[in-house]
Amino acid sequence: MCHGSVFRLDDTRLLDEHVTHGAWTWEMRSLQEVSYQVRLVSGVLDPANDLLAGAGAWPGEKAARRVVVADSAVNDVYGEAIHRYFGQHSAEHRLVVLDVCEERKRLELVTQVIDELDRFGIDRRREPLVAIGGGVLMDVAAFAASIYRRSTPYVRVPTTLVGLVDAGVGAKTGVNYGRHKNRVGTYFPSTVTLCDRGFLATLDRRHVVNGMAEILKIALIKDRRLFELLEVNGSALIASRFQDDDGVRERVAVEVLHRAIEAMLEELAPNLWEQKLERVVDYGHSFSPTLEMHALPELLHGEAVAVDMALTTVLSVQRGLVSSAEATRVFGVMRALGLPLWHPLCESNLLREALHDTIRHRNGQQRVPLARGIGAATFVNDLCDTELARAAEVLAREACRG
Amino acid sequence: MCHGSVFRLDDTRLLDEHVTHGAWTWEMRSLQEVSYQVRLVSGVLDPANDLLAGAGAWPGEKAARRVVVADSAVNDVYGEAIHRYFGQHSAEHRLVVLDVCEERKRLELVTQVIDELDRFGIDRRREPLVAIGGGVLMDVAAFAASIYRRSTPYVRVPTTLVGLVDAGVGAKTGVNYGRHKNRVGTYFPSTVTLCDRGFLATLDRRHVVNGMAEILKIALIKDRRLFELLEVNGSALIASRFQDDDGVRERVAVEVLHRAIEAMLEELAPNLWEQKLERVVDYGHSFSPTLEMHALPELLHGEAVAVDMALTTVLSVQRGLVSSAEATRVFGVMRALGLPLWHPLCESNLLREALHDTIRHRNGQQRVPLARGIGAATFVNDLCDTELARAAEVLAREACRG
Repeated sequence: MCHGSVFRLDDTRLLDEHVTHGAWTWEMRSLQEVSYQVRLVSGVLDPANDLLAGAGAWPGEKAARRVVVADSAVNDVYGEAIHRYFGQHSAEHRLVVLDVCEERKRLELVTQVIDELDRFGIDRRREPLVAIGGGVLMDVAAFAASIYRRSTPYVRVPTTLVGLVDAGVGAKTGVNYGRHKNRVGTYFPSTVTLCDRGFLATLDRRHVVNGMAEILKIALIKDRRLFELLEVNGSALIASRFQDDDGVRERVAVEVLHRAIEAMLEELAPNLWEQKLERVVDYGHSFSPTLEMHALPELLHGEAVAVDMALTTVLSVQRGLVSSAEATRVFGVMRALGLPLWHPLCESNLLREALHDTIRHRNGQQRVPLARGIGAATFVNDLCDTELARAAEVLAREACRG
Repeated sequence: MCHGSVFRLDDTRLLDEHVTHGAWTWEMRSLQEVSYQVRLVSGVLDPANDLLAGAGAWPGEKAARRVVVADSAVNDVYGEAIHRYFGQHSAEHRLVVLDVCEERKRLELVTQVIDELDRFGIDRRREPLVAIGGGVLMDVAAFAASIYRRSTPYVRVPTTLVGLVDAGVGAKTGVNYGRHKNRVGTYFPSTVTLCDRGFLATLDRRHVVNGMAEILKIALIKDRRLFELLEVNGSALIASRFQDDDGVRERVAVEVLHRAIEAMLEELAPNLWEQKLERVVDYGHSFSPTLEMHALPELLHGEAVAVDMALTTVLSVQRGLVSSAEATRVFGVMRALGLPLWHPLCESNLLREALHDTIRHRNGQQRVPLARGIGAATFVNDLCDTELARAAEVLAREACRG
């Protein structure tokens, strides 16, 4: 949907006046409604399930043609299943396998996807690109879709925990540029995201833990019950890869995913294009982008976010926003989940550089979200280098205790 | 402005049901209002004029910092004036000169702009990029702005006629990719476009004629009076470069620009993101993208559009939509303006290829706008190869007559 208007000139007196005064202004105003679905489902690659085949399709369209982009880890495990699925449901498909990682998350991968779209040839609106993979794969494929013919619909199937609760459900697309994380990109959500926890079954432990960082983030600044669920069940969920299918355990696995996704969507819906730069979901993302890029390839995204959250928890304690007892619980959960609290690069020089870039990114102000107790947040604009240095030292000592 | 909502789940009964049925759907709905100004002004680079310095600035902001991107043709003529202007108005600026042309309109130029933005460092929302140049320069700079930090405001100062009435006033950004014109890009209008016909004074004749093609386009499908203005005054306007500043002649120069810009904006406002693929402003743009890219560097954009318009005028005559007398007037104006009616590549094979790509671009249907008389348009979906080949032959003969 799109509405729009422009001030019109039909009066020649106005034109004369315009010539006399040498200036004229048109005010353009257009309204765009963007809507998309996020679905928590199961059996996405089961040939009997037509959810994925129909995702993003136009009602009543004839034979489907699909370009499917998957990362190589997904291809190793699910490549045949993907071919089988689309072979059964589509007249024609092409599976493009990208070798992705945070270091290769660059424009070259985007152009690789565009080349494939050009080669295969797709109709502009009714043949969505399908992206199956982790956060990096989805960010890259989504960026390609968003700029190909100035926007081509796409469908996401996240296969990692970060993908399920974070990268797969929002509107952000993008790649790293220079030393900067996600420096170029767009806002362009998929028509549909199909979240299927079944994919987590084959995920290695470290990548499950990686996703837990984003769930913990949303818990800390918005959902106390989610924090408590992680506190009690976090380790077990990692061990089971969320695959529990008996009564209570299944209910917990689903509730954790459900709460994490819903909390994220609630924050995104009124601020999809980030007009408001105070975003609680930026918690853990003030210092971590610089840390993650400097530490490449050592830290996964969620691990860098965890270090940021540990640091800002210390800042919150120093400012009386979080009690020592609460901080102890937070650090306890991080340790139980297997998340890092600290990294050698987390020292005053890097923190200063990170804050400088974050200030540019947030248009001249810090707007750093800090936890307030457990399950709420506040924003600060007056962090100083001394305070950061002190927090980094306290954190280094805390981390040694672990 | 942005509104949004997400369906929320607060009821644990629903969660149980969700677990039982194994599926859950969130519907996201967000509304974005995009507004921008197009201004017809004069003396943009006059140091006494603070329009450009203030364009896109936030009210009450302190010292301005600006990255200014200009093409080398602009730099040759106005480089010093640009430095003088920003030197007077800004605390700090960097002028980036890009060597642009249709063949170099590629991602490499976009990354060149991004490198400069990264090097200079700008705050995300209050330090707009300034693009001064022709259509290619503006498309490239606008694309860079739109993906840098997922959207960075920018200001346009078109210096060519195509820029003034077309590339500078819409929302489309982008670059060529492979053999395809503007295959990658975004929809992202500048905060403000300052249209100053003064820049046309230094434009060579061929580039003025090039811009006349886009004015003729909008006249043919939407504004009969504009066509008549071109019929009577077109050659004189080209000769004077729209620089007339005495009574009647000035009034005509301003009215032509005014009508062309306003007609364009009227078409764009309700369809800024091209949700509707039937666009009258696509007149002259069904076959020309392929023709232009195949003929590179021979044809300028407007010249390729002119050949397309001549061809579709013949098609309109063949279908009884345009009378022979009307066609004669159209060809007469094109000749008087110095626009080509034909090109050797305009033959059945290329036309078939072009139509195939246009059908993909318009989501499976031709949606080809044809002129209906002079000043109105209609859409057709049933062009066939024979009809195209016949029209190309008729056009070849017509062109010989010129």
